[in-house]
Amino acid sequence: MTTESDITTLADQLSELLDGHAVDAAVEMIASIHPADQADLYDNLDPEKREGLLALLSADGLAQLLQHLDEDQRQEIIQRMPRASLARVLDRMDNDEAADVLQQLPPAEAARVLANMTTAAQVTPLLEHEEESAGGIMTRGYVALHKDMTVQQAVTYLRLRKPFTEEASYLYVLDSTNHLEGVVNLRDLVVADPDTTIDEIMVRDIISVEPGTDREEAARILQRYRLRALPVVDSEGVLQGIITADDIIDVLSEEATEDMYRMAGVGVQEWVFSPLRESVMRRIPWLSFNMLWAFAGAAVITLFEGTLEKVAALAIFMPMIAGQAGNAGIQTATIVVRSMALGEVSVGDLLRVLSKEWALGAIKGTIFGTALGIIAWLWKDNPTLGFVAGLSLFCNMLVAATAGVLIPMTLRRLGFDPATIAGVFDTMLTDLMGFLIYLGLATIFITQLQG
Amino acid sequence: MTTESDITTLADQLSELLDGHAVDAAVEMIASIHPADQADLYDNLDPEKREGLLALLSADGLAQLLQHLDEDQRQEIIQRMPRASLARVLDRMDNDEAADVLQQLPPAEAARVLANMTTAAQVTPLLEHEEESAGGIMTRGYVALHKDMTVQQAVTYLRLRKPFTEEASYLYVLDSTNHLEGVVNLRDLVVADPDTTIDEIMVRDIISVEPGTDREEAARILQRYRLRALPVVDSEGVLQGIITADDIIDVLSEEATEDMYRMAGVGVQEWVFSPLRESVMRRIPWLSFNMLWAFAGAAVITLFEGTLEKVAALAIFMPMIAGQAGNAGIQTATIVVRSMALGEVSVGDLLRVLSKEWALGAIKGTIFGTALGIIAWLWKDNPTLGFVAGLSLFCNMLVAATAGVLIPMTLRRLGFDPATIAGVFDTMLTDLMGFLIYLGLATIFITQLQG
Repeated sequence: MTTESDITTLADQLSELLDGHAVDAAVEMIASIHPADQADLYDNLDPEKREGLLALLSADGLAQLLQHLDEDQRQEIIQRMPRASLARVLDRMDNDEAADVLQQLPPAEAARVLANMTTAAQVTPLLEHEEESAGGIMTRGYVALHKDMTVQQAVTYLRLRKPFTEEASYLYVLDSTNHLEGVVNLRDLVVADPDTTIDEIMVRDIISVEPGTDREEAARILQRYRLRALPVVDSEGVLQGIITADDIIDVLSEEATEDMYRMAGVGVQEWVFSPLRESVMRRIPWLSFNMLWAFAGAAVITLFEGTLEKVAALAIFMPMIAGQAGNAGIQTATIVVRSMALGEVSVGDLLRVLSKEWALGAIKGTIFGTALGIIAWLWKDNPTLGFVAGLSLFCNMLVAATAGVLIPMTLRRLGFDPATIAGVFDTMLTDLMGFLIYLGLATIFITQLQG
Repeated sequence: MTTESDITTLADQLSELLDGHAVDAAVEMIASIHPADQADLYDNLDPEKREGLLALLSADGLAQLLQHLDEDQRQEIIQRMPRASLARVLDRMDNDEAADVLQQLPPAEAARVLANMTTAAQVTPLLEHEEESAGGIMTRGYVALHKDMTVQQAVTYLRLRKPFTEEASYLYVLDSTNHLEGVVNLRDLVVADPDTTIDEIMVRDIISVEPGTDREEAARILQRYRLRALPVVDSEGVLQGIITADDIIDVLSEEATEDMYRMAGVGVQEWVFSPLRESVMRRIPWLSFNMLWAFAGAAVITLFEGTLEKVAALAIFMPMIAGQAGNAGIQTATIVVRSMALGEVSVGDLLRVLSKEWALGAIKGTIFGTALGIIAWLWKDNPTLGFVAGLSLFCNMLVAATAGVLIPMTLRRLGFDPATIAGVFDTMLTDLMGFLIYLGLATIFITQLQG
């Protein structure tokens, strides 16, 4: 485990070794560092030193490093690699990661690389699945047993086969046509009497997903049943691959980031140090959309320009009526979006959720509407202004509650991600409706307001 | 694996069995259901049927069910349980979960229950750690080996000890005073020659955390190094417990929920079907705070009431200047908060982040400021109004960029969670500054505006 300042020190040391052509010392140093830290080290090196680091790595070492680098840097390295070396390196990567790399190459090139790979048979089937599906994150690396083996035979087989650690948490019992019959926990294999058969210790009630299952759904299942891997089985019961807990951890964290960014209208692929140009391209479209709506709001206000000319004080409470309801709506939308993501609520619960949020909206509306009404009345010495402002806030709180539930649920029903601009959409609607209700009521009561 | 409609069917079947006093059939049925699904089933039963279900469970079964129920329901069941049965059930739970239950009892009562527990020695040390720390989520259930054992001896020991599955991914090599000397992967134990010693196959370069480490930091380390468990070691190198991947998955998903809710000013403990009263209590405080700020905004507008009386059209673009910048600020704040949560950026990167966001803010400000300026000019046939509105939006975009970076980073520096109302704080500031800049500029150019 290495801290940020350690990494800087290591980067300096490695740069010195490379400058002094101390190749052996540099190789030894790199070998002592965890690939996750090597990735940070790579990040901290000058471009020409990066080349030096890559040149020192074996195919195995390079495969490990690539698995820990972020996608942009990985692509950049892969672009420049000779195609023959690339095949050798991909053979040494987890095959789900190798498939990800191949999917980002031009198809003709990917085919050429695949032709040189010894793991082509495992990787090829992974290429047909969507990135966001269970098939897209599964690996073909699993250990298959037969139910008639004894525990001793299975252990002997494992000693010969030497599976990777991630592959070994569960062992899969297949029949002669690869149908999944049972699962053996590695712990159970170790603890069992050597003479018992696999048949006796395997679990038959298997929790699995299909290749087309959404990866978020797969993550929820693994989390719910506290598993360390999940078999992916096609509709005929044939084992296609497995999804391991470390991949699920990445999925959960990516999906949470996506939801937060979507709520705020930020590009899903952005991070804090994305190049400026990329950040501009990702944020502008949504802000433009927002601007169009804001003009709709402006048009509503224009309708009532005559009213505003007569009672300029109306402008004072306009942003508050829109904003307070907008924030209440974001509270509702956030809870609905996150609860749907966690699988705690579905579109079928619409009426139950809506009636709760209406009740809540009515309570919030009564409290804040009354407060605003009294304060506006006393501040501007105008009881009608207080009445109009307070009633508008109450009504707009109900608009916010409705929109906060309906917008994400409608997006889900239409097949979109419910987080897609749900928060923002809500704000736009409460702005528009807030202006309309408030200035509309003011126009009705204009005589009393001026009194 | 069971779907939502399966659960409803199962609940109906179980209700019937309980009504008919078919105890054996009911016991058999429950035994065939995964505890995660039993928890859903419990949720779907009428209150009196729930009692029936609980009565049918063994101490083991009840321990499993309690581990899968949500906290409210767990507390409710525990309140009503005789203290002697509670000790028996807690003995059968993971000891980190048992510690969580005990921590929620009144201290005197917890001590009485502990006195009756056979696992008191494992659970007691867990009680002193904060819930949000590594110590608060670790379990004492781990398998300890000695380095002089052979692989064969270790396997024999495992057969006698029969550890839980979660405990068995890694085995920990301790010296006679419990100092952690190495870690053995279960897979490596199985694959190794039976006559080699543990010393030869153990990993000495151990990735660990201290009991006081924040649980979010522990989660990041486990994710970064793709581990399935993480040892918790005190400052003297003595093993205190382990954190397993399934607990980390829960932490990641809870922390992501917390950040989303905090950004929106929603209570961290709320979910979509929280009781109405609880939801009211959780949402009102923050909305009240927001209302106070909105009055500050109203006070700013009041300062310029004279200007608004002269040019009522000014009110039209007021919400847009505040809102468009507010949304840009939320984009920035969301990216900064999430990047800090994922450990991709720290307070030390302040200047680098700030300069990027300023550049971005200037670009957004130029694009949208120019667009607003031209549209306002043509729409209201007033070039000065266009100039004032456009320039105000440009300036407010810079305010938004500054606030979007500074607010979460300052909160982190002060020791608060950076997500705490970061998004909302930003909106408040852009509202206030937007009104001030826009109406201030309008007052300066009032003669030309009226022209």
